[in-house]
Amino acid sequence: MDTTPKAVILLSGGLDSATTLAIARDQGFSCYALTFRYGQRHEIEINAAKRLAATLKVTEHRIIPIDLACFGGSALTDLNLSVPKNRLDITENIPITYVPARNTIFLSYALAWAEVLGAFDIFIGVNALDYSGYPDCRPSFIQAFEKLANLATASAINKNGTFRIHAPIIKMTKAQIIQEGTRLGLDYSMTHSCYDPDKNGRACGLCDSCILRKKGFEEANFPDPTTYISSK
Amino acid sequence: MDTTPKAVILLSGGLDSATTLAIARDQGFSCYALTFRYGQRHEIEINAAKRLAATLKVTEHRIIPIDLACFGGSALTDLNLSVPKNRLDITENIPITYVPARNTIFLSYALAWAEVLGAFDIFIGVNALDYSGYPDCRPSFIQAFEKLANLATASAINKNGTFRIHAPIIKMTKAQIIQEGTRLGLDYSMTHSCYDPDKNGRACGLCDSCILRKKGFEEANFPDPTTYISSK
Repeated sequence: MDTTPKAVILLSGGLDSATTLAIARDQGFSCYALTFRYGQRHEIEINAAKRLAATLKVTEHRIIPIDLACFGGSALTDLNLSVPKNRLDITENIPITYVPARNTIFLSYALAWAEVLGAFDIFIGVNALDYSGYPDCRPSFIQAFEKLANLATASAINKNGTFRIHAPIIKMTKAQIIQEGTRLGLDYSMTHSCYDPDKNGRACGLCDSCILRKKGFEEANFPDPTTYISSK
Repeated sequence: MDTTPKAVILLSGGLDSATTLAIARDQGFSCYALTFRYGQRHEIEINAAKRLAATLKVTEHRIIPIDLACFGGSALTDLNLSVPKNRLDITENIPITYVPARNTIFLSYALAWAEVLGAFDIFIGVNALDYSGYPDCRPSFIQAFEKLANLATASAINKNGTFRIHAPIIKMTKAQIIQEGTRLGLDYSMTHSCYDPDKNGRACGLCDSCILRKKGFEEANFPDPTTYISSK
């Protein structure tokens, strides 16, 4: 019987979750990657997740459709709202790209799958520095979900294990994340960050996510493999 | 401007959630009912939810497809597993009808909708007595989710409100639930409880949910409006 511990990894196809997957794998977990098709504006991110899952040799990759657009309220899921460009202070306030309760929903699904798999480790690539405006990227949120997970599940009653929610990059700068991923051999050209790519999948270069990515590569002193439409 | 407070109510179409909706309405909330189509074995429950939402005059009723069957692990979503009948002690251990992380996922969606609506009240018809084998029906789980909700959302940062997770029937017996619903004018013939109905929607009379329902009506000393296939 294979006794390698299993972990569920939330994999969006972006830089942060790709690095998180590389870290989970480096820690010796058998990785079960979970990607959501959630009314995103594009499929490009999902294709990046598929490439990453294959390259990083996950044990299984599930892509689950969930309808977050049905509630509206975010520029990432609502086509009537525009993705902000060239924001002056991207860490200020809660941006319109915030998707209500998104990470709570994502972690809930990860918990369901973990419970069926007999896994007790869940990895999520949230970052509290870059996304300080997102309430569900903070350490206190992750701790609260971990507590919830250990009350919500059969294992809480059967006492056969304790869930751990791993957020290994939560306190890293973007540059540190890129350095860690590079050290682990991750090829960042496979990742996609832009909130608003063109139809060929090229990154806009102006949204919050592009700005953070560009800055990260600059500060890490690594060449950015991304092709941007605008180099402003 | 209408200042009636809004509440999101999880409505399955069963006896417990119908009573919970009647209670929320009685407390003066403008009710937004949320029902999931989650790979259940039947649509009968969803039709019951539709009737209840219309009769109890909710402000809006959303039915959202979510794929819990994709993970398996429960007799309620996996057609390869049988619904247990005539169990001797239905409060013992975690039954195979437990759906991994179900209430965590349901509450996460309710939280997302509440956040978009500007609602701070969420009602869920969990019951800790009848479903003592379900970890996510206990008061400690509800408290942990309430804490999470207040960390997970924009309001946690904007400080414009505090989420409350209401579980008004959590400590009631089935008989007390039926008495309370009846007092509020609820017609229980509109509700559906059976885990394994026939194709005409008739309740089996033998699964845990039927047994609890029958016992509840007996103890409340009200006539049970349900047509059961088996009256054992």
